Amino acid sequence: MEIPVKTPSHSYAVTIGKGILREALTAQHDLFTKADKIIVLTDENVWTAQQSYFEANFPYIFEVHVMPAGEKCKSFENYNEVQTYLLKQKCTRKSLIIAFGGGAVGDLAGFVAATYMRGIPFIQMPTTILAHDSAVGGKTAINHELGKNMIGAFYQPEAVIFDITFLHSLSEKEVRSGMAEVIKHALISDAQWVEELLEGDHVTELPEDLLANYLAHGIQVKATIVEQDETEQSVRKYLNLGHTYGHAIEAAAGYGRVAHGEAVMIGLIFSLLLSEKFGKVNHQFTKRFLHFAMENGYPFEAVREFTFEQLTEYLLKDKKADYGQLQFVLLETIGQPFVQKVELEQCREIDRQLRALLAEV
Amino acid sequence: MEIPVKTPSHSYAVTIGKGILREALTAQHDLFTKADKIIVLTDENVWTAQQSYFEANFPYIFEVHVMPAGEKCKSFENYNEVQTYLLKQKCTRKSLIIAFGGGAVGDLAGFVAATYMRGIPFIQMPTTILAHDSAVGGKTAINHELGKNMIGAFYQPEAVIFDITFLHSLSEKEVRSGMAEVIKHALISDAQWVEELLEGDHVTELPEDLLANYLAHGIQVKATIVEQDETEQSVRKYLNLGHTYGHAIEAAAGYGRVAHGEAVMIGLIFSLLLSEKFGKVNHQFTKRFLHFAMENGYPFEAVREFTFEQLTEYLLKDKKADYGQLQFVLLETIGQPFVQKVELEQCREIDRQLRALLAEV
Repeated sequence: MEIPVKTPSHSYAVTIGKGILREALTAQHDLFTKADKIIVLTDENVWTAQQSYFEANFPYIFEVHVMPAGEKCKSFENYNEVQTYLLKQKCTRKSLIIAFGGGAVGDLAGFVAATYMRGIPFIQMPTTILAHDSAVGGKTAINHELGKNMIGAFYQPEAVIFDITFLHSLSEKEVRSGMAEVIKHALISDAQWVEELLEGDHVTELPEDLLANYLAHGIQVKATIVEQDETEQSVRKYLNLGHTYGHAIEAAAGYGRVAHGEAVMIGLIFSLLLSEKFGKVNHQFTKRFLHFAMENGYPFEAVREFTFEQLTEYLLKDKKADYGQLQFVLLETIGQPFVQKVELEQCREIDRQLRALLAEV
Repeated sequence: MEIPVKTPSHSYAVTIGKGILREALTAQHDLFTKADKIIVLTDENVWTAQQSYFEANFPYIFEVHVMPAGEKCKSFENYNEVQTYLLKQKCTRKSLIIAFGGGAVGDLAGFVAATYMRGIPFIQMPTTILAHDSAVGGKTAINHELGKNMIGAFYQPEAVIFDITFLHSLSEKEVRSGMAEVIKHALISDAQWVEELLEGDHVTELPEDLLANYLAHGIQVKATIVEQDETEQSVRKYLNLGHTYGHAIEAAAGYGRVAHGEAVMIGLIFSLLLSEKFGKVNHQFTKRFLHFAMENGYPFEAVREFTFEQLTEYLLKDKKADYGQLQFVLLETIGQPFVQKVELEQCREIDRQLRALLAEV
């Protein structure tokens, strides 16, 4: 399946499907033959799990550089090390980078591509469900010790190739985490799709074909938004539904302990409660949605580990915060997002409601 | 005087003149009032020399961050430190950076602006003649220990404000260095302007009005080229006339000892000799131009300090090198540049000719 992404700066296609790696690569033949060098950036976990399938289906000569896994990959130090590696390999402006891995690899490799010699071409090749989201749309970043994703660029890939064969090695936690972004894509775009998800199988047990369809649908939602607003001046903010409170939980817990998507799911409930106040979402829906999320094993116990005061520090660091004022993406109704400024005191009240609701169910 | 720059990604104006600082700033009133914080990034030399004039004419509240001067400013460490500073200042996506200084400050501050939270607005406020060139066109960069300007981005400023009052504190060497880029702009665009320069006063002794005119003319040449090719895929390469051999001299000497523009002037002679071979430039012109450059004190003795073999290593590191092949910008006739692939052996022969010519005059 092919989904076009047309941004002002650059147009490209996302190819998604099972076992499509070789075919999708061959479709980009010109890109590969034009490159004077092909560098695969990946991490140790991905390379251990996927090397043989990758090598069996990658019909071009390449060099591979294996990086530390997880958030270490996105450190300033690793960013510098990868630049050193490229310089030592004598990479030029015509060299091509393949970002092969999950979101962290994609973010780091994308930012390296955006800034090596002021920008060289790269391909996103995500290996996780979560990365169906991060690999599309051109957000790249590394972490600063004072904040995650604080340094980065908007830089579009030449292509995104998403072979869902790679998903086989994911843990249940990783599937659950990734599906939260799919569910978010449904919430901001399509009430009927949300119904289907709520009524369907557990998100960790979806049949492969259905999963591929959902991922393609999510990418389509994201592509449509990114086409309208590449650099997050307006509608692209909708993609942050659930992320403001979610990021705070993720950061307070220490990155990795609560997975990104798990934290986003907690943030989605927070947004639904806020949407009752500022939009027309009804409390019955919020409760039904929370029930669905709990059934699917999302770790709401994380909320109790922190006081609202502890979360506040992280809430105020949000990149969407304008002039120190908190901004949330909320839903008018399911499928209809909008951006709302919210006072910290109002957040405190919603946080209280969330804790009460969690105690109740 | 105002010169518009229209690139695909962003349009802005360059304002140039004597004592225009306050007026030019006020013309950008909206930009300043929209900003939640204004951060001036400068270096210790510039701030010492210019603080009082700056403060007397800057009618907005700002914070200043003073960085080490020279190439240290463009180190990875300083890049990280400035990001830390911005985070500690709680800068957001609505904060505005002022790059106040020479080329190094502009390059570093521009790259910080390009990558802080994936890009925030910035204004270039050059304080040197050399920076009339680097402040326009959106090239930003920092250095890597394996190469200068190896990490960077194409990122356009919101405005360029060039008050030539700041030039008063420049040394003769800095004026000479900066004028080499003006002369380069003449060589790639306008034979009559080249004549005027060759027949005129010493470049370090130009009347202020004429200097301002020349700078505006150079910016106009650059703006026209950048409008056609923002990211150096085609005609923007013409701006590198003299830079391939020039960079090699500059790097071999150790940055700072031979100033950038001084090295470019040596590179311009090298390009003229190559242009005799590949274009229609005649040897009489090259000799006349060399005579002019020597009269103006450009330090050609630097060539003798290195063998061609020593320079080769640096020549091959040039970012324009495609597939390891050297690329030079040459002149068909004065004012008509083109790009030419040149074998290393041909460079060696021209290097020999250059040394012979220098021994002769």
